[in-house]
Amino acid sequence: MKSTQMIFPMDEYDRRIRRTKEMMDRQGMEVLLVVDPANMNYLTGYDGWSFYVHQGVILSLNADAPLWFGREQDANGARLTTWLPRDNIYGYPDEYVQSRYTHTMCYVAQLLRDRGWAEKRLGLEMDGYWFSAKMYLTLQEQLGRSTLLDATNLVNWVRIVKSEAEITYIRQAARIGERVMQTAIDGIVPGVPEREAAALVSAAQITGTAEYGGASPAIFPIMPSAERTSTAHLTYDPDRRYRRGDVVLLELCGARYRYHAPLARTVYLGDPPGDLEKTAEGVVTGLRQTLAFMRPGVTAEAVEARWREAIAHTGVVKPSRVGYAFGLNYVPDWGEHTLSLRPGDKTVLEPGMTIHFMPGIWLESYGFECSEPVLITEDGCEKLIEFPQQLFLKA
Amino acid sequence: MKSTQMIFPMDEYDRRIRRTKEMMDRQGMEVLLVVDPANMNYLTGYDGWSFYVHQGVILSLNADAPLWFGREQDANGARLTTWLPRDNIYGYPDEYVQSRYTHTMCYVAQLLRDRGWAEKRLGLEMDGYWFSAKMYLTLQEQLGRSTLLDATNLVNWVRIVKSEAEITYIRQAARIGERVMQTAIDGIVPGVPEREAAALVSAAQITGTAEYGGASPAIFPIMPSAERTSTAHLTYDPDRRYRRGDVVLLELCGARYRYHAPLARTVYLGDPPGDLEKTAEGVVTGLRQTLAFMRPGVTAEAVEARWREAIAHTGVVKPSRVGYAFGLNYVPDWGEHTLSLRPGDKTVLEPGMTIHFMPGIWLESYGFECSEPVLITEDGCEKLIEFPQQLFLKA
Repeated sequence: MKSTQMIFPMDEYDRRIRRTKEMMDRQGMEVLLVVDPANMNYLTGYDGWSFYVHQGVILSLNADAPLWFGREQDANGARLTTWLPRDNIYGYPDEYVQSRYTHTMCYVAQLLRDRGWAEKRLGLEMDGYWFSAKMYLTLQEQLGRSTLLDATNLVNWVRIVKSEAEITYIRQAARIGERVMQTAIDGIVPGVPEREAAALVSAAQITGTAEYGGASPAIFPIMPSAERTSTAHLTYDPDRRYRRGDVVLLELCGARYRYHAPLARTVYLGDPPGDLEKTAEGVVTGLRQTLAFMRPGVTAEAVEARWREAIAHTGVVKPSRVGYAFGLNYVPDWGEHTLSLRPGDKTVLEPGMTIHFMPGIWLESYGFECSEPVLITEDGCEKLIEFPQQLFLKA
Repeated sequence: MKSTQMIFPMDEYDRRIRRTKEMMDRQGMEVLLVVDPANMNYLTGYDGWSFYVHQGVILSLNADAPLWFGREQDANGARLTTWLPRDNIYGYPDEYVQSRYTHTMCYVAQLLRDRGWAEKRLGLEMDGYWFSAKMYLTLQEQLGRSTLLDATNLVNWVRIVKSEAEITYIRQAARIGERVMQTAIDGIVPGVPEREAAALVSAAQITGTAEYGGASPAIFPIMPSAERTSTAHLTYDPDRRYRRGDVVLLELCGARYRYHAPLARTVYLGDPPGDLEKTAEGVVTGLRQTLAFMRPGVTAEAVEARWREAIAHTGVVKPSRVGYAFGLNYVPDWGEHTLSLRPGDKTVLEPGMTIHFMPGIWLESYGFECSEPVLITEDGCEKLIEFPQQLFLKA
């Protein structure tokens, strides 16, 4: 019995399981413990805001379907949203939740023993948000250290090339993202409370379009104004109104079934200072030249080098990475933690990769951002969102 | 020079630092590494969506102010939002971000060495979302294992008793929460797309009231309908419209400066089935009796026992905890991970604690929720939100 809430056909999951097993086998891992919620969703379809307690998916090379474990009260969620057989869904008793006396990893160790997997070479998402030091030490104590391997981002790397079905959802997210950005730009006017513009943005993210309902995104609306634009990750001031002379940075997205299409733009209220216009012009020109360069076969670091070359004459310096892979995700990040556009990243671009080219500049007193989410195609790259590349001026 | 973006006076932070040092000293910790964003905010004021990369606050018993470290592009955010002296703010270069070659904890170990703190007894938030197994192993490798101690939830326990200033913000969040819940109940009507109701909720959370701007909350709007209410943490269906015969669970909140006031209610569209009405009546009666029992001096487990006694005659069984401490937080949880209302929790209630009494029931085919966020007062408990305790019927 397959659930009615699945958003992909079964062959999509078959392919994901097969490719993950291939990666496991290549790295000598017989069993993989996946606790990243995006990776759990990718392999099984599981979708719920239950990752604030320990949960996971256990995939063994010698089993067809993974096991899901989580809090008992979330087990029905796994039955509703995943393709897993009911016998593969394990709800643990509530006494394990944030306990000072026992630990969920004791439960997981027993599950591994029951399946005969306790002696197997076990891969763990060692550097993920959802795999704490204590989870590791408890498993180590329960199972013995020698069999524990680092599987950080293993499934993330499987995710990096998107299927046609995934690209369809990302395109739907892009349609939502266009409306979201237009909503933001329309709503930012001198005298308007910043929170009113942010509320419209958040509502637009969820409403989506007439055809495609939206989703709460993995990052809240990043829309700082004025001096708060001199840094990367602040948002609106809840008690302030926009004023003439404000710069407003917009780092927003559309999301569809947890698939994202991120986009950044910048608004200036009034007549912009000359150096901001100059920065904007330099960034936009560099952005266009870099997009024209992105295609299968070039490396991530070569893309960054092309960008650096394109802006060398402007004096703009961007000491941080200028992009990353994106797609399916949950809080706190829509980035995939795989490819980064920066020196040293040797990842070769392939068709089906989705990359947020994000040349954000934060100067001492304000910032400027203009980004593009792109799909790597057979012979180049395609902008997923059509939105003017410029500094938006509002009076 | 103090920042203009601070939301508390300096004596509030002085008290927090003093109490945290007291807890550290009691547990034999000379230095504490805090990576939980709510704990970072609590000690320094830091507020930004930058926790998707490694960052933290380092507090030493022998220093007045903690150090902040984070990504270089977020260092201005620390200058803007914290009370820390500029010399205490360390931005690390971008090559540490999600690197496959080095690790942020190498940077942190060097920071500790530079300060002469590398040999000190170091407390770590071992079981937090934000302290991965790899962070621990890297620090262990850099510093030697013997000095690493478990400080899971140490600052969370300091946070459990709220100051007057914090209670003021929680009351503001409560005012927002009332409007959010009313918005949800008004918006849920047969024929309306679920996403439209969710969009209104999200907008109301951010807009707040005329006096108090709201914030993006730590948990997305949990508002499942129909069969999706048989589990705890699903949300609206982006492509469905409400129908007569739907149960809709609403687990929402108001938030003010990251301080939350959570509230759960249940809506039924049409004439409710008898067993749902009976469940609702039993839960509401039990809720009222339990709130009347909550006061300083009783234990968390005694509250749960009182609740169990109150509903014993109804046949309703609730095998999970019925509440938890809440307050300041970021995704993925507004709960504080300290006090839980459940068997075995010996925490004694004290004035100033804020607790979400949350008796959610998930039956095989639907659920019912009716909760109250309360403040423990000198002689009892005070409901922070005034909202009818009932099953809401909409035609």
